[in-house]
Amino acid sequence: MARLATALGERLGLRLPIIQAPMAGGPSSPELVAACSAAGALGSFGFAYTQPEEMKKQAAAVRAKTDRPFGINLFVSPQPGPVDMVHQSAALAALGPWYAEMGLPAPEAARPAYAPDLEAQLAAVAEIRPAVFTAHLGELSEKWAREFRSLDIRLGASATCIAEAQRIEALGFDFVIAQGGEAGGHRGTYLRDPYEALTGTIALTRLIVRAVRIPVVAAGGIMDGAGIAAVLSLGAQAAQLGTAFIPCPESGAPPIHKQAILAAREDATRITEKFSGKPARGIVNRFLREAEAKHFPKIAFPAQNILTGRLRAASAKAGNPDFYALWAGQAAGLARALPAAELIAQLEQEAIAAIRQITALVQE
Amino acid sequence: MARLATALGERLGLRLPIIQAPMAGGPSSPELVAACSAAGALGSFGFAYTQPEEMKKQAAAVRAKTDRPFGINLFVSPQPGPVDMVHQSAALAALGPWYAEMGLPAPEAARPAYAPDLEAQLAAVAEIRPAVFTAHLGELSEKWAREFRSLDIRLGASATCIAEAQRIEALGFDFVIAQGGEAGGHRGTYLRDPYEALTGTIALTRLIVRAVRIPVVAAGGIMDGAGIAAVLSLGAQAAQLGTAFIPCPESGAPPIHKQAILAAREDATRITEKFSGKPARGIVNRFLREAEAKHFPKIAFPAQNILTGRLRAASAKAGNPDFYALWAGQAAGLARALPAAELIAQLEQEAIAAIRQITALVQE
Repeated sequence: MARLATALGERLGLRLPIIQAPMAGGPSSPELVAACSAAGALGSFGFAYTQPEEMKKQAAAVRAKTDRPFGINLFVSPQPGPVDMVHQSAALAALGPWYAEMGLPAPEAARPAYAPDLEAQLAAVAEIRPAVFTAHLGELSEKWAREFRSLDIRLGASATCIAEAQRIEALGFDFVIAQGGEAGGHRGTYLRDPYEALTGTIALTRLIVRAVRIPVVAAGGIMDGAGIAAVLSLGAQAAQLGTAFIPCPESGAPPIHKQAILAAREDATRITEKFSGKPARGIVNRFLREAEAKHFPKIAFPAQNILTGRLRAASAKAGNPDFYALWAGQAAGLARALPAAELIAQLEQEAIAAIRQITALVQE
Repeated sequence: MARLATALGERLGLRLPIIQAPMAGGPSSPELVAACSAAGALGSFGFAYTQPEEMKKQAAAVRAKTDRPFGINLFVSPQPGPVDMVHQSAALAALGPWYAEMGLPAPEAARPAYAPDLEAQLAAVAEIRPAVFTAHLGELSEKWAREFRSLDIRLGASATCIAEAQRIEALGFDFVIAQGGEAGGHRGTYLRDPYEALTGTIALTRLIVRAVRIPVVAAGGIMDGAGIAAVLSLGAQAAQLGTAFIPCPESGAPPIHKQAILAAREDATRITEKFSGKPARGIVNRFLREAEAKHFPKIAFPAQNILTGRLRAASAKAGNPDFYALWAGQAAGLARALPAAELIAQLEQEAIAAIRQITALVQE
């Protein structure tokens, strides 16, 4: 059977140039990461909200299943400062009725040390020594970049504009992920206004491929082999897919999230800060619609994420999609429910078929 | 020399599957249309604001230069009703200071018959009998679709969502143009809220290719051969490029527009309704920024376009980009200043090179 291979894929030890996007908050479970890596793609943990001990436990669970490379991703934005108490009170008041509707006690203020400690998370990464570490929403400090490099961990980071890509190249990273505006979940923008950095994947990938010399991974709106072939045409050396993997049986997303993605047809997503405090793309549901209409003040990420946490969990548990963050990209309508290994095999064969089809358009 | 060909391209009589996007208001001059068509692409007139007699004159100018096929595009949204006088007064008041700054007399209210008559424009199309007619911002009436078909005019229309694409297919059109969110100029959305239909080109093209059986043309963010190869990978049968042709010497865009596109690096575009009354993507300049901040009421398209008309013209004439509508797509940063025929030849060879490069990624 024909195979698809790129220089970056080989360098990362992959059988094929597909990265399962890290998806913090559930979807990138050890089962999904292990299944993707075992199938030759790069399974990746989204550990933004995960404490160091749990990170180590989950990484060990993957290693018990496969010795193939996997990746870890963290949000490396500066550690959040104290929460604005006035804004938090307003946010708690706004959230109250939805909590009550779900039969929950009133939401509580975020505790002082409300976010996992980034330094401790990074120390856990050094201990785990994954094949790849990717940074989102900011810059990895020079100290940790040096440490990870000495441990032979390959480094990548998300860029949503040329300036971010050039900065990532200047920091000596191995690759840059062009996160197009189609992408689901949190925007990685850290040098621009995120709403001014919603450049579509085709445009952004080309702009970045032309602006840097390090390999580019494309992300955003890629759901099938044709999408993978398209970004390879643009000069990307791998495709990163998130939404495509959410419906997999191995994914840790709750059934309502999987169902919402499988039921999507038109692009029914929007960017919101109301769930977490930072802009992220998800399928429009009742919370997103009503919260946007209420205009309550956002509080610092991830404090807002903590305030909405029990509401989202209760919504998932009740099988009610109204209050859950249904993160998804704009092409969710192309999703299918397949075990990860089968999905990856299909993606590869579809990409090869798409490449053959356009090869035939060239007349010598 | 190797060539690039698709079934739709052949059906439209093209030597290569590239459509020069119709760009109303200047850029798609007879010189540009003739040069693109003569080079084997589909040159296209954007005649939204053009009176029937002028349409015929410009079409004749193209025919004096080439016998290759060309296209005509019209905005087929329902004819505008009378202008809201209160809103118009507010808009005129808001525009006043900018008019004064440019040394112009105060802006005048739109006259009763302020827009070209669509029926008369369509009758002119029937008389001109171009190879292709494309509709933007709405549906061509069944009467005219029948008439154009009987004249052997191929029909296409823009879609920004699946529902629009399926409607265009149901109307018996020959092809649908998937207008991705990256695209410059006016959004073609007519069945959804345009701000909910900003799906990126990769996602939208795949969603539409999978949803209809008629050929799909992809538009939005395509500036070079790699972009063309990418959309062909997605299953599109042609690529429509607008911004890429604006800097051509044959284009009728004023020098400030060409310069702004050639100077672009990062995606510095935004969607605004302040120039014309309908959402369109352009490079952020002083008018766009200040007008968005003022929140003056928009009046019906194209009345707003008429109110800003003399301001835009004076801005262009003065070589001052502050008040001109610098329509451009998100990948304007990739533009180059070449005669249209040279640009088209480069695009074809780049696309072929990109296809060969990804063909080499398949290992048998």
